[in-house]
Amino acid sequence: MTKMAGFRPKHFLWQVEGKVAHIQLDRPERKNPLTFDSYAELRDTFRELRYAEDVDVVVFLPNGGNFCSGGDVRDIIGPLVAMEMKELLNFTRMTGDLVKAMLACGKPIITAVDGVAVGAGAIIVMASDIRIATPEAKTAFLFTRVGLAGCDMGACAILPRIIGQGRAAELLYTGRSMSAAEGERWGFYNRLVDAGALEPDALDMARRIASGPTFAHGITKTQLNQEWSMGLDQAIEAEAQAQAICMQTRDFERAYRAFVAKQTPVFEGT
Amino acid sequence: MTKMAGFRPKHFLWQVEGKVAHIQLDRPERKNPLTFDSYAELRDTFRELRYAEDVDVVVFLPNGGNFCSGGDVRDIIGPLVAMEMKELLNFTRMTGDLVKAMLACGKPIITAVDGVAVGAGAIIVMASDIRIATPEAKTAFLFTRVGLAGCDMGACAILPRIIGQGRAAELLYTGRSMSAAEGERWGFYNRLVDAGALEPDALDMARRIASGPTFAHGITKTQLNQEWSMGLDQAIEAEAQAQAICMQTRDFERAYRAFVAKQTPVFEGT
Amino acid sequence: MTKMAGFRPKHFLWQVEGKVAHIQLDRPERKNPLTFDSYAELRDTFRELRYAEDVDVVVFLPNGGNFCSGGDVRDIIGPLVAMEMKELLNFTRMTGDLVKAMLACGKPIITAVDGVAVGAGAIIVMASDIRIATPEAKTAFLFTRVGLAGCDMGACAILPRIIGQGRAAELLYTGRSMSAAEGERWGFYNRLVDAGALEPDALDMARRIASGPTFAHGITKTQLNQEWSMGLDQAIEAEAQAQAICMQTRDFERAYRAFVAKQTPVFEGT
Repeated sequence: MTKMAGFRPKHFLWQVEGKVAHIQLDRPERKNPLTFDSYAELRDTFRELRYAEDVDVVVFLPNGGNFCSGGDVRDIIGPLVAMEMKELLNFTRMTGDLVKAMLACGKPIITAVDGVAVGAGAIIVMASDIRIATPEAKTAFLFTRVGLAGCDMGACAILPRIIGQGRAAELLYTGRSMSAAEGERWGFYNRLVDAGALEPDALDMARRIASGPTFAHGITKTQLNQEWSMGLDQAIEAEAQAQAICMQTRDFERAYRAFVAKQTPVFEGT
Repeated sequence: MTKMAGFRPKHFLWQVEGKVAHIQLDRPERKNPLTFDSYAELRDTFRELRYAEDVDVVVFLPNGGNFCSGGDVRDIIGPLVAMEMKELLNFTRMTGDLVKAMLACGKPIITAVDGVAVGAGAIIVMASDIRIATPEAKTAFLFTRVGLAGCDMGACAILPRIIGQGRAAELLYTGRSMSAAEGERWGFYNRLVDAGALEPDALDMARRIASGPTFAHGITKTQLNQEWSMGLDQAIEAEAQAQAICMQTRDFERAYRAFVAKQTPVFEGT
Repeated sequence: MTKMAGFRPKHFLWQVEGKVAHIQLDRPERKNPLTFDSYAELRDTFRELRYAEDVDVVVFLPNGGNFCSGGDVRDIIGPLVAMEMKELLNFTRMTGDLVKAMLACGKPIITAVDGVAVGAGAIIVMASDIRIATPEAKTAFLFTRVGLAGCDMGACAILPRIIGQGRAAELLYTGRSMSAAEGERWGFYNRLVDAGALEPDALDMARRIASGPTFAHGITKTQLNQEWSMGLDQAIEAEAQAQAICMQTRDFERAYRAFVAKQTPVFEGT
């Protein structure tokens, strides 16, 4: 196990308050594009989060009124155009590995979106567990606009499970922007709040989830991913095993004792 | 094959009218919690329903203004806190087996919800085929509140397919109540009706479905579950086989002859 | 590769404008039912479309105010009632093969619905990529009305992924009509437009998608189907490979060069 409160990333902002880690991309003057370096550092950070003992929930926040403008056209797309297949696959695997690391980190990820969330930025939102946005959020899976397919970093698998196969198909074929209102109506955004309330709201939800039971939350995240393509009977057996594990935590006993004593349980994560 | 009209369960109410079985949990003063005994008897009942020749549709009804308050804290959670792993797994498998038996019973299940449907109560609603509720229904997958994970009795697999991955994640991480209006908007409840209309409405739908073709309905239920994690081509071949079986029933011929004679078909279930 | 602009089908209308193929069933006086012959010819057409170099998008249009009334009761259901199992399975496999061919053709399919779209007609709409309808559209998976199961041509697998498991179950068990407003609200229809705007709107969307990048669109369609039942990590790796392929197209470079030159990219499909 490791501690990440003192972590000092080079390519994005990082802060740990309580057991909530805050992440912000940090090139607001360009709407926070991703670069080769920030992709790789984010991937490594989520891989390390899997073992972090002082972080229980991750919150992605916008910066300067925008979330993320995706892979930078000059810094990323320019070099890609000149690459051979081996290097291209290295790149697409690295971006895919960021999503794999977000899914496997074992901590719920709450993402708060304002302004632009496009391309790989929209993917980071999609790969989060809970999504909050302002009415000004514009979310676009615009890969088709740069001559590419909609199948980027898991979008053809994950987006249909969030908003339905038909709506996902339209967004991926056309690359058009999904308005915040559509996002909420379609189940992509869990709720919309005004810009002034966005950060407090996301952090409040993060703190409540971080108040536990955090071991059980980690199992919930594991099972949501683990059961993705299981048969029904296999999923039900998997949950019988996973929940039996949770029943041997002290937090389960703490909840019971609090209930009997008519108190609010205080979870400790074990 | 077996007959279940004369069945006299010990731990819930049971009635068969026409070919519709009614089930009601029966501790309304405590909002109808489940116990070890009622879990086991429900599981056994749905296993037997698979072979019942006098029941074609099952209706779950509320009792005293509530559907079900889930596993009883004193009767179930208290003992679980003291159990070893072997016993815990016995318990989580038994509850999972109730959902497996509901899925495998081969008869459509319509569930009518008023008031509270929480914990395992919410799972019974989720594992049904069609869901009707009153505006007062409060549905909560509140396992996290008792220190457990959201992966209970298939929830991480089934709930996302009903309401979408994002909405399901929020409900499972927070344990918050889903309002009736949210439930209808998100596709969890097929419709909302006033409390006075709830039982008549559910029974009316049950009778219409029980008017057949019931053999074909059983195949529809089988395939909805069977194709859960199949590839698309495999699912289409499976349906070609399943529908060809239905085309050899007399009910298919009855429908055709009724159409030619400009009459309403009378299905007989074979 | 093959060219299909000069194709002259016997059992439906066909036209290619630009790289958009238009299909219309052509028995408007009977609301455009399918026959054994039109099923087979549609299946063969979509199989050939996989290799067509002069078609990039397919548009299905209504005819005479209706989309399709499904399998003709006298021409199809009558003969089926008299068939042996071997012939029945030949038939259900042929209808399933139409859906398989639509999924595998590699070109986005946009379907415009007015009036009736029922039975196999509703399936054709469901198996399309993008769906537009008028407020008068009535869509019904009414197999149960003719004594059959809801599992027809992939409906138990595909419909739940578009509108959710609960809404799909109700439509398949009851056979009831889904209104256009429900269809839009549930994500079945991407949008509703007045009858006068239906054809122009569908063709406009088709032309925009046909303006490319069409090779990438084909990969998007492939991956939406390919990842249907993959695990998450497998889907993400599959997308890393598929997107790396797209990054070696000239269209990717064209988009980059247009961006740098502040122009709109002109895609060529390679």
